[in-house]
Amino acid sequence: MKPNETPMFDPSLLKEVDWSQNTATFSPAISPMNPGEGLVLRPLCTGDLNKDSFEHKKKTGDYYVIVVEDVTLGQIVATATLIIEHKFIHSCAKRGRIEEFVISDEGRGKQLGELLLSTLTLLSKKLNCYKITLECLPQNVGFYKKFGYTVSEEKYLCLRNQK
Amino acid sequence: MKPNETPMFDPSLLKEVDWSQNTATFSPAISPMNPGEGLVLRPLCTGDLNKDSFEHKKKTGDYYVIVVEDVTLGQIVATATLIIEHKFIHSCAKRGRIEEFVISDEGRGKQLGELLLSTLTLLSKKLNCYKITLECLPQNVGFYKKFGYTVSEEKYLCLRNQK
Repeated sequence: MKPNETPMFDPSLLKEVDWSQNTATFSPAISPMNPGEGLVLRPLCTGDLNKDSFEHKKKTGDYYVIVVEDVTLGQIVATATLIIEHKFIHSCAKRGRIEEFVISDEGRGKQLGELLLSTLTLLSKKLNCYKITLECLPQNVGFYKKFGYTVSEEKYLCLRNQK
Repeated sequence: MKPNETPMFDPSLLKEVDWSQNTATFSPAISPMNPGEGLVLRPLCTGDLNKDSFEHKKKTGDYYVIVVEDVTLGQIVATATLIIEHKFIHSCAKRGRIEEFVISDEGRGKQLGELLLSTLTLLSKKLNCYKITLECLPQNVGFYKKFGYTVSEEKYLCLRNQK
């Protein structure tokens, strides 16, 4: 995080996730505070993104966008977002969604997908989400099962609006 | 909407959805402005909900909660929510989600499910969402197909956090 930059959410939250509850296996061991040689895991910051979009997401308080920066390359090599949704049911409970989960070519082979998913899954717990969900292609289901996700009975439906 | 109440979003949006693009069949014909005898379709208002939750949802600007009120009963008989998510991809595009879609016993047999779903689907278009999605049980897929939704290849995965 560069000086004078504003993070999307309090970076200390990433220190406070209970990594001991992580269910995936990391070899070599990495963690949110030690993501690997030359890498930093941090919230998205003002300098990373179009300002209007950043400000809106920060204002809601419901977007937890994390990135891994390769500090040598000066480049973001992986990102994933936890979005909090507020429900009426379950006494205004919160649920989490994993969105925009992307690893760049430069970030592959470093367990960064596992690191980001473990981090956001544990963060959803820390933020008292009663559940966390995501959509994925059938061939990627196995990846998510390592973290405790199961395929829901529910179907995922989509409608694309014409321009 | 009672006097002195604040709606969650501008009620004129419900007048402005292009009902001519609705794909479902209504018999008798109903519409957002004419939802049926003794019924009013409107945004959720301050008086309907726990204040803190209402204020948060309103502040984000991303929650479009609509309700049908039976003005004779003085009771909300149907509700559904469109939530807007802001993406990085597609030049910070918006996508919509349908959530918390509930019809009470008093609201059944009045096409209110169809009315709410058509209204929010068209509202997502008006708000420039490039797509709109929802999750549903397999036995309800047929209902959504009437509105142009199709089952995605993607799987819907869930993890429930322990207390």
